[in-house]
Amino acid sequence: MKKFMDENFMLHNETAVRLFHDYSKKLPIIDYHCHINPEEIAKDLRFENITRVWLGGDHYKWRLMRCAGVNEKYITGDASDREKFQKYAETICQCIGSPVFHWTHLELQRYFGYHGVLSGDTAQEVWELCNEKLKEAAMSVRGLIKQSNVELICTTDDPIDSLEWHKAIAEDKTFDVKVLPAWRPDKAMNIESPEFCDYIAKLSEKSNIEIKSFEDLKAAAINRMNFFATMGCNVSDHALEYVDYLPASNETIEQIFSKRVKGETLTETEIRNYKTAFMLFSAVQYHKMGWLMQLHYGCKRNNNPLMFERLGPDTGFDCISNFAPASLMADFLGALTKDDTLPKTIIYSLNPNDNAVIDTIAGCFQDGSCVNKIQHGSAWWFNDHNTGMCEQLISLGNDGFLAGFIGMLTDSRSFLSYPRHEYFRRILCNLIGEWVEKGEYPADMKRLSKIVEDVSYYNVKEYLTNN
Amino acid sequence: MKKFMDENFMLHNETAVRLFHDYSKKLPIIDYHCHINPEEIAKDLRFENITRVWLGGDHYKWRLMRCAGVNEKYITGDASDREKFQKYAETICQCIGSPVFHWTHLELQRYFGYHGVLSGDTAQEVWELCNEKLKEAAMSVRGLIKQSNVELICTTDDPIDSLEWHKAIAEDKTFDVKVLPAWRPDKAMNIESPEFCDYIAKLSEKSNIEIKSFEDLKAAAINRMNFFATMGCNVSDHALEYVDYLPASNETIEQIFSKRVKGETLTETEIRNYKTAFMLFSAVQYHKMGWLMQLHYGCKRNNNPLMFERLGPDTGFDCISNFAPASLMADFLGALTKDDTLPKTIIYSLNPNDNAVIDTIAGCFQDGSCVNKIQHGSAWWFNDHNTGMCEQLISLGNDGFLAGFIGMLTDSRSFLSYPRHEYFRRILCNLIGEWVEKGEYPADMKRLSKIVEDVSYYNVKEYLTNN
Amino acid sequence: MKKFMDENFMLHNETAVRLFHDYSKKLPIIDYHCHINPEEIAKDLRFENITRVWLGGDHYKWRLMRCAGVNEKYITGDASDREKFQKYAETICQCIGSPVFHWTHLELQRYFGYHGVLSGDTAQEVWELCNEKLKEAAMSVRGLIKQSNVELICTTDDPIDSLEWHKAIAEDKTFDVKVLPAWRPDKAMNIESPEFCDYIAKLSEKSNIEIKSFEDLKAAAINRMNFFATMGCNVSDHALEYVDYLPASNETIEQIFSKRVKGETLTETEIRNYKTAFMLFSAVQYHKMGWLMQLHYGCKRNNNPLMFERLGPDTGFDCISNFAPASLMADFLGALTKDDTLPKTIIYSLNPNDNAVIDTIAGCFQDGSCVNKIQHGSAWWFNDHNTGMCEQLISLGNDGFLAGFIGMLTDSRSFLSYPRHEYFRRILCNLIGEWVEKGEYPADMKRLSKIVEDVSYYNVKEYLTNN
Repeated sequence: MKKFMDENFMLHNETAVRLFHDYSKKLPIIDYHCHINPEEIAKDLRFENITRVWLGGDHYKWRLMRCAGVNEKYITGDASDREKFQKYAETICQCIGSPVFHWTHLELQRYFGYHGVLSGDTAQEVWELCNEKLKEAAMSVRGLIKQSNVELICTTDDPIDSLEWHKAIAEDKTFDVKVLPAWRPDKAMNIESPEFCDYIAKLSEKSNIEIKSFEDLKAAAINRMNFFATMGCNVSDHALEYVDYLPASNETIEQIFSKRVKGETLTETEIRNYKTAFMLFSAVQYHKMGWLMQLHYGCKRNNNPLMFERLGPDTGFDCISNFAPASLMADFLGALTKDDTLPKTIIYSLNPNDNAVIDTIAGCFQDGSCVNKIQHGSAWWFNDHNTGMCEQLISLGNDGFLAGFIGMLTDSRSFLSYPRHEYFRRILCNLIGEWVEKGEYPADMKRLSKIVEDVSYYNVKEYLTNN
Repeated sequence: MKKFMDENFMLHNETAVRLFHDYSKKLPIIDYHCHINPEEIAKDLRFENITRVWLGGDHYKWRLMRCAGVNEKYITGDASDREKFQKYAETICQCIGSPVFHWTHLELQRYFGYHGVLSGDTAQEVWELCNEKLKEAAMSVRGLIKQSNVELICTTDDPIDSLEWHKAIAEDKTFDVKVLPAWRPDKAMNIESPEFCDYIAKLSEKSNIEIKSFEDLKAAAINRMNFFATMGCNVSDHALEYVDYLPASNETIEQIFSKRVKGETLTETEIRNYKTAFMLFSAVQYHKMGWLMQLHYGCKRNNNPLMFERLGPDTGFDCISNFAPASLMADFLGALTKDDTLPKTIIYSLNPNDNAVIDTIAGCFQDGSCVNKIQHGSAWWFNDHNTGMCEQLISLGNDGFLAGFIGMLTDSRSFLSYPRHEYFRRILCNLIGEWVEKGEYPADMKRLSKIVEDVSYYNVKEYLTNN
Repeated sequence: MKKFMDENFMLHNETAVRLFHDYSKKLPIIDYHCHINPEEIAKDLRFENITRVWLGGDHYKWRLMRCAGVNEKYITGDASDREKFQKYAETICQCIGSPVFHWTHLELQRYFGYHGVLSGDTAQEVWELCNEKLKEAAMSVRGLIKQSNVELICTTDDPIDSLEWHKAIAEDKTFDVKVLPAWRPDKAMNIESPEFCDYIAKLSEKSNIEIKSFEDLKAAAINRMNFFATMGCNVSDHALEYVDYLPASNETIEQIFSKRVKGETLTETEIRNYKTAFMLFSAVQYHKMGWLMQLHYGCKRNNNPLMFERLGPDTGFDCISNFAPASLMADFLGALTKDDTLPKTIIYSLNPNDNAVIDTIAGCFQDGSCVNKIQHGSAWWFNDHNTGMCEQLISLGNDGFLAGFIGMLTDSRSFLSYPRHEYFRRILCNLIGEWVEKGEYPADMKRLSKIVEDVSYYNVKEYLTNN
């Protein structure tokens, strides 16, 4: 029996051990998609206690506590931080099979030097240890980033964001980690949203372009993209129910836009037409600017009306959506080949059944201009665990080009999430090591170490910088 | 090489062996969903020969025989019992990879003490041995239930059922296993069925409530639910193509009902409206009564018209349906949160691709009122095998709360099916043991044994009784 | 650690080693579905160099090169054969996890005696070795087929094909491998295609039946089927987006046909009506003639308009389609049971999520007339790898009858692809061996060897000949 989460955690063969310890683990982290708040980096936020770090906004943990029968009072309610921590400790020790169990203990090991098991019994001890540790300088937001060997962070930002905190960080010479914005224009696409018109008004103001038509909106968006570019942005991101394709003429799109602005209700077809036009515009523009496009799809959000009313979005009430016709995604990407305007694209689905679909679609749009121009994004959110990662890696090996994969990102709101990169790298090394030890790939350490190092770090570095 | 199906069958590590033999296997069985006939328990039926027990109604076995090229004469036809047994024996020995192969041999081992392999060569020997054994008192229906250590059985019953046999069993002090009805009102929901109006007439009669409207139907249903409750029922079950949600006003529903009663044909939308209304009513009522709701979906039945005409339903001609939009299931459950009327719910899909969808939807509706208020039901029917069970357990671990799982049920029509619980428990122990031996979860036998015991027995006991 | 791709490649247990080496590997190959060109067999084509064999038309390899960032010049462009080989060598050595990596090295081992690893460094050495070897008589097309122990090949042929090369091969007494045509009438079904009318004209000419109606078209098809039958054909094949079922009256079908011939545009419903009618006609006719029906579905082709314009079809721009309602496939097959006109059928989906759907649908139509009358086809194209094969085999074991499986086919355009049968057989033996060594199936070598031999060779032989 292997020791619980020791230095060879997830590494079940000799080749894996060598690949991870001698090559992968030393490399810096490029966290090219996350949801951390740049203000907290700019201000170098410090945390009062472990509950604030862990349970302040982490809906993964909240969901587990709700499953375990914990009353909402101890999750998002008015219980004390110590009480909430107790409930979490009592929950997490039962969470066999959950990646959150592993993340929790990796974070305790790496940042707090605690190698025991968090449970109701150990909660007090861990509480004290963590809170004591959090007082150290190295445990500020910047300290955590630095000790995690992070080289680059891409946040997720709205087109109307001032990017003031990104600017502040860039200008602060005492902190050398790059923190770049990423362009996420969902609100300009979601024409059916009650908030669309208000949003367009704000975008007009920010861009100094009066938006009376879709043409104007495009101009305003380009204006803001240019501003984002001055702040180092070359990454975009879209949250989509599915990747759709229902094109219409420019005239039709303008009519739809006009109808919406007048407050009329759009048909389902009109909404799809508009969104398709918006996505085509965006993609072409990314291609022109050398930006990459991230497509996150397969999520249905805010499914619990009762809790949505109480807690708002991003509080643990989202699920996988399984409606995502492959043919539409293929047609959307195909349309962009006609004038050769398809940007580098990373595709992520929340539905684990989509791996082979994504890999085979990606394969239709690789054009030799770079390695894996179309990337199958790392196992995401509800798939961000050993099973999900292995399935994504194996599918990519089977139907794509695993050696060219850009690898892991945290997608996290927390500054303690960087061990997810370590987790990913261990799983990657283990899988590759297993293939090698079974005689399915040559035991050539030079080639193996190159693959592992590339997927851990160099591929994404190249993919992001060489636009 | 391990011995064929010995005492450590399916247990491939030391931790698994300990967990199963020291903890799990001793616990009673709560079979909270099955299709056995309570009359046979009340009458303490005895079986003339092994063909009657095994091949009288088991479409799993029939399907295998048809695959193997056996003529229908020897399956459901007029061949002798001995001949049918011979054909089954010749078939099953070839069924490598099939759970039915394992079930067959588990049943031979546990109930008949036979540890060989059933085949054409051994058929005569097994025939004699089994038939001799079947003469023993312990091999009556009640004997089989008792020796299987069953504590509670929930059958599957129509609202118009008299429950006379449940009553007889309850009143018979010589038999202490609880046999409770479960409410399965499919016929009142399937408004498009040619038999709907006849059924409504019968329901009127049984409830003494004249049903002229949907309001009346609800009253009649409540009347029968109250009766079912007096017989100890607190479990419902629904067989659905998919979990739908297309609500309409009360007026519209009454119009639809009225249209149907007049013999007019309903549109697809009207059918969906009615079914949605029926399911919403049912769920609210279950919540009120403290019942739990089982949703079985993803099945398309009676696909072979030729054989349906000859043999009727439940004869081996059903398949998985892959149309089940996650968004509709989420919306149905979401609608029930608005007035806080969502009952405890167990969700089962026949499509093995739905595991992650179910786990992530369930996670949106856990409310801390109990452990796993929304349960992801055990791998069902075509998924009731090692692969299906492992995938369900792993998915539940990844995206849900495995330690709170209510575990196994037989879903069977046979009194010899209880070893499926043993099979499940072995697989559960093996999976958990594997995680532990790989260092992914602490080797703390106290915590591990609690998880295994809970999933084997205590969780479902708590889930069923504490409404 | 196991040696790289040695004689026990993919065989990870003792039972597997025995099953493969003592039983499976010696058996001939029946390649019942492939895309090789019979003209090349008739002419006994020889290859100038390894690039011509490997990179002339193999879109699997082309896709990998595009992923790896290779310029199209070196893939389908005007670079020299030696340059293209270099780029392929530099690519393939990185392709960890890809079946193409294994196929490449199996082919180098079996046909060229090369046991190293192909890479940029070894490219020159391999180039010379292969090209030298290709000069040998045994390396002609027929030589390759003979040394691969192939007994029967079924090509893929259009109804208007003259089958002249099949005739030439059959008449050539110096070559004893059967090369039979297979009937693939896609062009007669694809009524929405711009080329439909031209095709119908050609079919009229070839059949000497003037086609003015769907009735005429059926007569013409039967005429050609009879001709195909004289050439030994008893296998058909269909490429479908999904298996559909939307029947209409004969009158309606004739109206649709007539509309199309006049050049009018058909509605989506009309297209589906026509295709359903065409497929029902085809199936009934196959049943009458004792032919088997192959249904390949789940593919969306030619997704990259830019590259389609440059290179045409079958050049590496196809993907999985995930729209394939199980209910429609079940209804199509069900309709054929009514008059007992369902032929032997092999079902393949390109979507790996469809395994359980296919197995459970197949189970509804097994009628005991032969072993596995409805077959779940071997893992196909994008699933033709260890993962895909194992999942298909396991699913077939779980929900079908694995022992009756007809096994592997190459589906290839290359004469070097026969080691894919070896690859399959190794994976099959390994899986079965693993079950046995775990005690899940008896270690009875007589029964095991029979299963392995049947799936490797005897099942398909029986399935093909006994119509």
